[in-house]
Amino acid sequence: MQIAFAGSHLDRADHIRADAAALTALMDWRARVLLLDGLDPVITPEGTLSWGTLADTQADSELVFLGLADGRGHFAEVSPAMIGSVAPANPRLWAAMASLSHDELATYGAARSLVDWHARHRFCARCGSATVLAKGGWQRSCTSDTCTGEHFPRVDPVTIMLVEHQGNLLLGRQPRFPPRRLSTLAGFVEPGESIEEAVAREVFEEVGVRVHSVRYVASQPWPFPSNLMVGCHAIAESTELTIDHNELEEADWFTRAEVEAAMRGDEDARFIAPPPQAIAHHLIKWWLER
Amino acid sequence: MQIAFAGSHLDRADHIRADAAALTALMDWRARVLLLDGLDPVITPEGTLSWGTLADTQADSELVFLGLADGRGHFAEVSPAMIGSVAPANPRLWAAMASLSHDELATYGAARSLVDWHARHRFCARCGSATVLAKGGWQRSCTSDTCTGEHFPRVDPVTIMLVEHQGNLLLGRQPRFPPRRLSTLAGFVEPGESIEEAVAREVFEEVGVRVHSVRYVASQPWPFPSNLMVGCHAIAESTELTIDHNELEEADWFTRAEVEAAMRGDEDARFIAPPPQAIAHHLIKWWLER
Ligand SMILES: [Zn+2]
Ligand SMILES: [Zn+2]
Repeated sequence: MQIAFAGSHLDRADHIRADAAALTALMDWRARVLLLDGLDPVITPEGTLSWGTLADTQADSELVFLGLADGRGHFAEVSPAMIGSVAPANPRLWAAMASLSHDELATYGAARSLVDWHARHRFCARCGSATVLAKGGWQRSCTSDTCTGEHFPRVDPVTIMLVEHQGNLLLGRQPRFPPRRLSTLAGFVEPGESIEEAVAREVFEEVGVRVHSVRYVASQPWPFPSNLMVGCHAIAESTELTIDHNELEEADWFTRAEVEAAMRGDEDARFIAPPPQAIAHHLIKWWLER
Repeated sequence: MQIAFAGSHLDRADHIRADAAALTALMDWRARVLLLDGLDPVITPEGTLSWGTLADTQADSELVFLGLADGRGHFAEVSPAMIGSVAPANPRLWAAMASLSHDELATYGAARSLVDWHARHRFCARCGSATVLAKGGWQRSCTSDTCTGEHFPRVDPVTIMLVEHQGNLLLGRQPRFPPRRLSTLAGFVEPGESIEEAVAREVFEEVGVRVHSVRYVASQPWPFPSNLMVGCHAIAESTELTIDHNELEEADWFTRAEVEAAMRGDEDARFIAPPPQAIAHHLIKWWLER
């Protein structure tokens, strides 16, 4: 299963992050800096990511070390204009990303998550003082001598689940989805629960159905802003749905034939399937192929 | 597999969190408030968690809604004394927790993660203003009119892995472990990587071994402070170890018989196995029973 946003060829070279001399040595004329338009990628006419050099960066920007390739440091820039901003939804983003290779899409996704985190985490949550980038952008450190708080980029785990009952699949529609789009249910893992518990809680909250036999299928990093999608399969104990309309506009059971038609893109399919970049697409494919 | 810190019987009743009237109605004389000593549980002579009432809380405390049981709201208190503090290591904690039932340990773990998060997240990371508790403690909101930032409790995913080569198991020793204790390797999932990629990267970083065939085994919420442990199994391509001594004091391969002896607690075993509360213990048991 080749899942979008995973599979970057950059070597994260973790040991370099805390090695100031090694990091500085990589910040030379050979360094590559990912060109971004806000948080969106700048795509070349050939449909690849655009990379500049350190000469293209602003003097007061922060630099995040993404990793190594061909012995060259690869960086992303957190420019002053990005700071504090929340990424607006951009309909052109998906078209731009569609042209990227699997490898490049993953490199971009990691960069986007990190830059977005730096842009929105300027202050110490413990004491309110300003923070500064540390360890090549894999940490921010509090500037208060009495606090010395260290803060790390967030990764928020989200369960996303195929819920099955006697060969039928449960799919639902979030209010923000495009017309006729349905997908698998999903929700954040909360403090104090396992993946399996989060799956069962979310399904019960959203549609009032109890599930058992939760099993893991696949995972995906999802850079909006920085989720770890944990794809699972579960068996429903019953079919009657009590939909939480704060979470879902609709939800229903679909036969294998109906799901197949939607995944083929048939015009008269009962719904439009999730796009190939989403792990939901892969989970449904996995379910059909079993 | 009954894994420690999962399996609370409290109903998280997610829908109540955003319903101010319902939440207020639960804050009556029947409400139960978990008694804590710092972040540690207060254990009754019977070896159970101690619960008080709202009358036991301080007027300027914040209350986190843990969930419902027997129609009663269950809460945890974030008292002014806790604020900004970092939980000190407490050797008595493990003894105290050992007396708790599976269910109670999970309730305590969730409460600990949440209270700790509130104690250390008083300010808005985006703008530095003060934040206030919202949605029954499942959110903090920025008090600045121009920011309106919303912040959510963290859950940090960590991969922890059984690495196997021709029937032998790789175990390592972190500097903070008690004498002779070994365990499975582990490390945080970073932005932009899947669980499977994080497993491969961590093993390569820590011991220089490439792995393939990563598969998920089990997960666990770990409340120190709020990790989601994602237990996996992977096959090593080679056995020669290049140990990163910043991460590990030592690492080596162990035969099935050696691992069995350690898990039995034999005095002459080559190492001391991880304790039953740790998912590493369950992973190793799963591996021996396969
Ligand atoms: Zn601070
Ligand atoms: Zn703010």
